[in-house]
Amino acid sequence: MLYLVGLGLSDETDITVKGLEIVKKASRVYLEAYTSILLVDQSVLESYYGRPIVVADREMVESNSDEILRDADKEDVAFLVVGDPFGATTHTDLVLRARELGIPFATVPNASIMSGIGAAGLQLYNFGQTVSMVFFLDNWRPASFYDRIRENRSIGLHTLVLLDIKVKEQSLENLARGRKIYEPPRYMTVGTCARQMLEIEEEKGEGVYGPDSLAIGAARVGGKTQKFVAGTLRELCDADDELGPPLHSLVLLGRRTHELEHDYVREFAVNKETWDRVWKTDYQGKQ
Amino acid sequence: MLYLVGLGLSDETDITVKGLEIVKKASRVYLEAYTSILLVDQSVLESYYGRPIVVADREMVESNSDEILRDADKEDVAFLVVGDPFGATTHTDLVLRARELGIPFATVPNASIMSGIGAAGLQLYNFGQTVSMVFFLDNWRPASFYDRIRENRSIGLHTLVLLDIKVKEQSLENLARGRKIYEPPRYMTVGTCARQMLEIEEEKGEGVYGPDSLAIGAARVGGKTQKFVAGTLRELCDADDELGPPLHSLVLLGRRTHELEHDYVREFAVNKETWDRVWKTDYQGKQ
Repeated sequence: MLYLVGLGLSDETDITVKGLEIVKKASRVYLEAYTSILLVDQSVLESYYGRPIVVADREMVESNSDEILRDADKEDVAFLVVGDPFGATTHTDLVLRARELGIPFATVPNASIMSGIGAAGLQLYNFGQTVSMVFFLDNWRPASFYDRIRENRSIGLHTLVLLDIKVKEQSLENLARGRKIYEPPRYMTVGTCARQMLEIEEEKGEGVYGPDSLAIGAARVGGKTQKFVAGTLRELCDADDELGPPLHSLVLLGRRTHELEHDYVREFAVNKETWDRVWKTDYQGKQ
Repeated sequence: MLYLVGLGLSDETDITVKGLEIVKKASRVYLEAYTSILLVDQSVLESYYGRPIVVADREMVESNSDEILRDADKEDVAFLVVGDPFGATTHTDLVLRARELGIPFATVPNASIMSGIGAAGLQLYNFGQTVSMVFFLDNWRPASFYDRIRENRSIGLHTLVLLDIKVKEQSLENLARGRKIYEPPRYMTVGTCARQMLEIEEEKGEGVYGPDSLAIGAARVGGKTQKFVAGTLRELCDADDELGPPLHSLVLLGRRTHELEHDYVREFAVNKETWDRVWKTDYQGKQ
């Protein structure tokens, strides 16, 4: 049996009791570690599970999934995914391959950032589609998020923006020379995300959002040091120190924000004066 | 400390290790049991936790929350919520009250139906706002879901429809006479939901969806007996036997359904011929 086991969002104790039982008895344990990370190291997980873990990078999952699935018709293989196995990153491709090979599978759900973000106090009912923000390069600034955000905002909905992480990336030079030397991991911050969003708005000028749009920066959602900072996009450009270490996400508020949501989120405002002013002008009663 | 602990979606082993530790040492343990249910009884939870549980009905949470929060500044109180504490039902009101009273709080996230539905094979990225469907009465057929679905469909997104549950409801007669006699619980099925959706479409006639729109019926998401049935809304009107016992949910597909999502979902089709025909005509390549 192939088990896809969600690990939740923060540390080794966020696994469910059901998931832990599976990990402890599986023949092999893989950890998908290229689309998100826990806030603890692999060694902490291994000692907590009492099991060695094979870290599965993108190449392994996408090009060598048959190794992961080897003998899974006869024994139990656990494939661990940070968050939920079908959350922000879906592993439908691995399951489709298992189906082809006639390997039975089961999933163990867990918290995903896509539901965990509810802890910021916004109702998940009122979120539109989720978008991703990647690190811009000089000549590569993918902005498809802009049209998606426009769609969400046109019907008053919040937008969750998931931020890029770069794990096990090679520099162009090392890639060209075939050297398996990897850059240190990089995690996008709320500040970088807010700046990139404003950069694209300035370029396109279609008024989908602006420096005064209200948003929430979220850090380490689901963890003991979880932190939310609310403010305008302009304010969030400078909120990284307050938010602290990764992982970060950002939520852009929709105009259909209820008073109860507002009461909850206002607590997190970096500057309550700005917040109240913008709220009254651009959001309150705009449902 | 007030702990809001998510229980996940299915049985007693879906609690996280972190959540279980909190429940075992809290002074009092409450279970919110009116907006969703686990697939196991309260007695199973109590024996698994080794703790008595106070079932908190809507009246208690909404009108008597100070009893729940009593002494929570000095001792630990665990408030258990099926799914995630900030998922489909947000308990922001309880937390706002705790804030007012100066009571510290922490949350333990878990799987929510709003992320767990990803197991159907549709990408959570491509979902719009979530809607709720309540049991229609002769003279009360709230249809605000219709406009919400229109908004989602206008931008190509999927819609998750959460289905009504009626727990601890009194008949009008018993209510009028002040008799605390409760009706047996009722859980809406996918069939009832699909019929009510088509009824409203027929009445409004605005073509937001129709009998041939593709959808997925989901039952007991996250549980061992999890079941998905895909088909047209017309087909799903008669899929309750195949889906089995509660809880049910429904997803209406958006036209922005990717081929990979389609490949995954097609497996669940109650009639692959109908599915393929409608897919080719109304969805494929319509992104």
